[in-house]
Amino acid sequence: MYTITGFSLVAGAAGERGGALFHGVDPSTGNVLVPAFHSATGADMERAVQQAVAAAPELAARGGAARAALLRAIADELELARADLEQLVPLETALPAARASGELGRTLGQLRLFADVVEEGSWVDARIDHANPQRQPLPKPDIRSMRRPLGPVVVFGASNFPLAFSVAGGDTASALAAGCPVIVKAHPAHPATSERAGAAVAAAVARCGFPPGTFSLLFDAGHAVGAALVRHPAICAAAFTGSTAGGRALMDLAAARPRPIPVFAEMGSINPVFVLPAALAARSSAIAEQLHASVQQGVGQFCTSPGVIVVPQGSDGDALRASLQERFAASAAATMLTAAIAQRHATGAAHLARCEGVSALVAPAQPDGMAQPCLFEVDAARFIADAALQEEVFGPTSLLVRVADTAQALALAAALPGQLTATLIADAGDNASAAALVDVLSNVAGRVLMNGVPTGVEVCAAMVHGGPYPASSAAQSTSVGTAAIERFARRVCYQNLPDALLPPALQEANPLQISRLVDGVRR
Amino acid sequence: MYTITGFSLVAGAAGERGGALFHGVDPSTGNVLVPAFHSATGADMERAVQQAVAAAPELAARGGAARAALLRAIADELELARADLEQLVPLETALPAARASGELGRTLGQLRLFADVVEEGSWVDARIDHANPQRQPLPKPDIRSMRRPLGPVVVFGASNFPLAFSVAGGDTASALAAGCPVIVKAHPAHPATSERAGAAVAAAVARCGFPPGTFSLLFDAGHAVGAALVRHPAICAAAFTGSTAGGRALMDLAAARPRPIPVFAEMGSINPVFVLPAALAARSSAIAEQLHASVQQGVGQFCTSPGVIVVPQGSDGDALRASLQERFAASAAATMLTAAIAQRHATGAAHLARCEGVSALVAPAQPDGMAQPCLFEVDAARFIADAALQEEVFGPTSLLVRVADTAQALALAAALPGQLTATLIADAGDNASAAALVDVLSNVAGRVLMNGVPTGVEVCAAMVHGGPYPASSAAQSTSVGTAAIERFARRVCYQNLPDALLPPALQEANPLQISRLVDGVRR
Repeated sequence: MYTITGFSLVAGAAGERGGALFHGVDPSTGNVLVPAFHSATGADMERAVQQAVAAAPELAARGGAARAALLRAIADELELARADLEQLVPLETALPAARASGELGRTLGQLRLFADVVEEGSWVDARIDHANPQRQPLPKPDIRSMRRPLGPVVVFGASNFPLAFSVAGGDTASALAAGCPVIVKAHPAHPATSERAGAAVAAAVARCGFPPGTFSLLFDAGHAVGAALVRHPAICAAAFTGSTAGGRALMDLAAARPRPIPVFAEMGSINPVFVLPAALAARSSAIAEQLHASVQQGVGQFCTSPGVIVVPQGSDGDALRASLQERFAASAAATMLTAAIAQRHATGAAHLARCEGVSALVAPAQPDGMAQPCLFEVDAARFIADAALQEEVFGPTSLLVRVADTAQALALAAALPGQLTATLIADAGDNASAAALVDVLSNVAGRVLMNGVPTGVEVCAAMVHGGPYPASSAAQSTSVGTAAIERFARRVCYQNLPDALLPPALQEANPLQISRLVDGVRR
Repeated sequence: MYTITGFSLVAGAAGERGGALFHGVDPSTGNVLVPAFHSATGADMERAVQQAVAAAPELAARGGAARAALLRAIADELELARADLEQLVPLETALPAARASGELGRTLGQLRLFADVVEEGSWVDARIDHANPQRQPLPKPDIRSMRRPLGPVVVFGASNFPLAFSVAGGDTASALAAGCPVIVKAHPAHPATSERAGAAVAAAVARCGFPPGTFSLLFDAGHAVGAALVRHPAICAAAFTGSTAGGRALMDLAAARPRPIPVFAEMGSINPVFVLPAALAARSSAIAEQLHASVQQGVGQFCTSPGVIVVPQGSDGDALRASLQERFAASAAATMLTAAIAQRHATGAAHLARCEGVSALVAPAQPDGMAQPCLFEVDAARFIADAALQEEVFGPTSLLVRVADTAQALALAAALPGQLTATLIADAGDNASAAALVDVLSNVAGRVLMNGVPTGVEVCAAMVHGGPYPASSAAQSTSVGTAAIERFARRVCYQNLPDALLPPALQEANPLQISRLVDGVRR
């Protein structure tokens, strides 16, 4: 049984005393948890960065097989920590044990998927254009390029996924897979979970013989350590999952550096769901059941929770409203991840209730520390005109928006800020409207889906979990799925290098047996 | 024969009167050229943007074949403008006629290469993960993703490539290929060339039946139009080739927007060349000839001109220095692109001459408006310690840096700011040092080359013309080569869409016959 120490893990060693102390809290009871956690000191941070810098060349030099072994070892060490994590996650987050178990499974799956990706090796996008000394008017040189790691990366743990988007989550897995040392800034809402997961990563790093600077985990009661990391000259990129305000603050810090760096922030989204008339007429009750379950799942604490449901005016829409209203009203209040998050949910819902043109369908008083599911309604013209209605309320709350017709639904879609997801509930009779909406929503969202719910983000090669700002800081990237590894690499090109000096991925004989683009042809 | 009008081209129509007037200048004589050019008005800019917004969905909807036809039509129209361009380019830039002709060839080649890329179609990186309804604990949905165009893009013409990195240059070609409408802000140093090329693009747009907002060309005497474009809410990305100061100003504008957008700025670089001992001993004179020719080519007005030459201490290095000194001293002064650029070269060279520890090997007085080739020398310890020595002096000037040994060359390499290129001049006897340098330089530069010169950037699939900041704003991208198209697209993911609603690239039958990643396997 691992004993939580309350100290940062700096390149395999414990952090210093001296930083501000903070505690985890059991959100179900408000009880303060022990032990206290020590915020990383400036010296801790500097040591973590310098050790990451020292580790970077070795990580870059180790091949995909070695990095795959590390990722699998991390998964194995987390597996060994299962009992601890299944106890700590519910204690620190009020998420149920089944969720902790499921999220651990997802975390292990991500690590092993990235292990497969780097072991296979084609992700480096090797390209070879052979020389042609006879070309006129100038000889053509030999040009070869591939993706290489960026260097030390900072990962910010997310409050709402204490395992899968946190210490050993998708950002860490993809950055290590790419060959980048990782320094995690733990989310202060689940420090013991973070330490336990961090200890598993550090054990795997040691067991696989990677340099200790490959991984560090820093605690902080506030924002200073994270800000200092993003500002540090040796840091090459940052990854973040959380609020738009938090992500934007990091973007601004990174953009103001003497040498700006990319920030891959996956931020807020209202994840609009468009219910189309034929589907609505055919299966209103089933739609209500499906949407209600999606909004209430995990107390609405998902980036992809449907915050806006677009429903036609008229009796079919009224029936869906009535069914949703009944279900929301019957839903129990639930404990959120932290008291502060519950407070923000209450404030956001109260703000919605006060907005002009908004009717409260279900909007009870907010018990302290609990989230009461809320449902509001507004007409489309008002929704389009009022940007405040287009902001995320993180939690089990949705806004019904009533549209007159397809044209208004299209206008609404076109007016939306960037979204992680957009969903159509549609039957065959809706196909013309659906096609037009898919076109518009393709410009708005990272993922467009039909007849499902946006919660539940499949981890696979084709997934895009991102989208135009403010859904993410970098619409050209994804934070889930195998393409997430590309965030932490850049292409480097080699001209007329002898074969022996080329990285194996670019050597003529293709010793890694990867897919390559050779003289314009995929081989 | 086309007659230059002096007006912006706003979505196929002439811009307004009312903006500040400016003139092209013949840099060889200082003579002001006619006609005067009218800076775009605010209304011109707004109309260009709104027409681009209106054109965007149609560009996105048109398939690769249609966009390929447009790109080839632009090349054909430029071909028809050859006589005009071969007259205008030398007049406005003092570049020789042969260069104008060669650069036009490169420009046509780029357009046709991107035509081939989008016609073939695999650049969209289509990925398909099939559903598995039986999967436990949750069914697996059908997930498909591909690259789609970002939306309207602003391209800034470059001073030093009036055709290939300007109105119809690589940025415009790759953005149109991706399906993005383009608004070019013309470089004021070659307005007539810009108008003639812009007229060719507009003619092709009309001939191919693309919406007129597909392309606009805006003139400006100053920076206001460019800044307003980068700030405009409807603009989705910007591309720039020029100075670090100019690129950084655009980056800062873009980062401060309510909705930040990517800026793909290809900026300054000193393009270090490392001459290794065995090569130096074997062929000092040939190396001097090659490097001198590269530095003096096009009056040193290339992003990849070798500004720093790293040479061992000792007699072989002294011989190379003597040979370079003789060649630089014998090189004639030449007219630069503009008087302002010549002035900056003179200032930069004079600054180098004053830096502590720097000896002037060739540093004559600077004739007005002409660039006199300059050669300086400094020892490596001083070079590493003084960031001012690591800044680009744009023009036919180089700094010799003398290193004691391989360890010092490696330390110098590791201390360099981000570079577009880094070059090794090495023989078989240098292999151990070369391997170590390639490792370090892979972290510093976008392109590492051996036994060639960095000037001359091959346009091909494997090219990377970019690099860590300050060489470029976005180290993960390239501004030359087929991968440049990826800058103007983002991945969009579709979940459980019926085949008929999917874009052709993602339909099950693969009607476009492109390479796709299906269930993790390249097909």
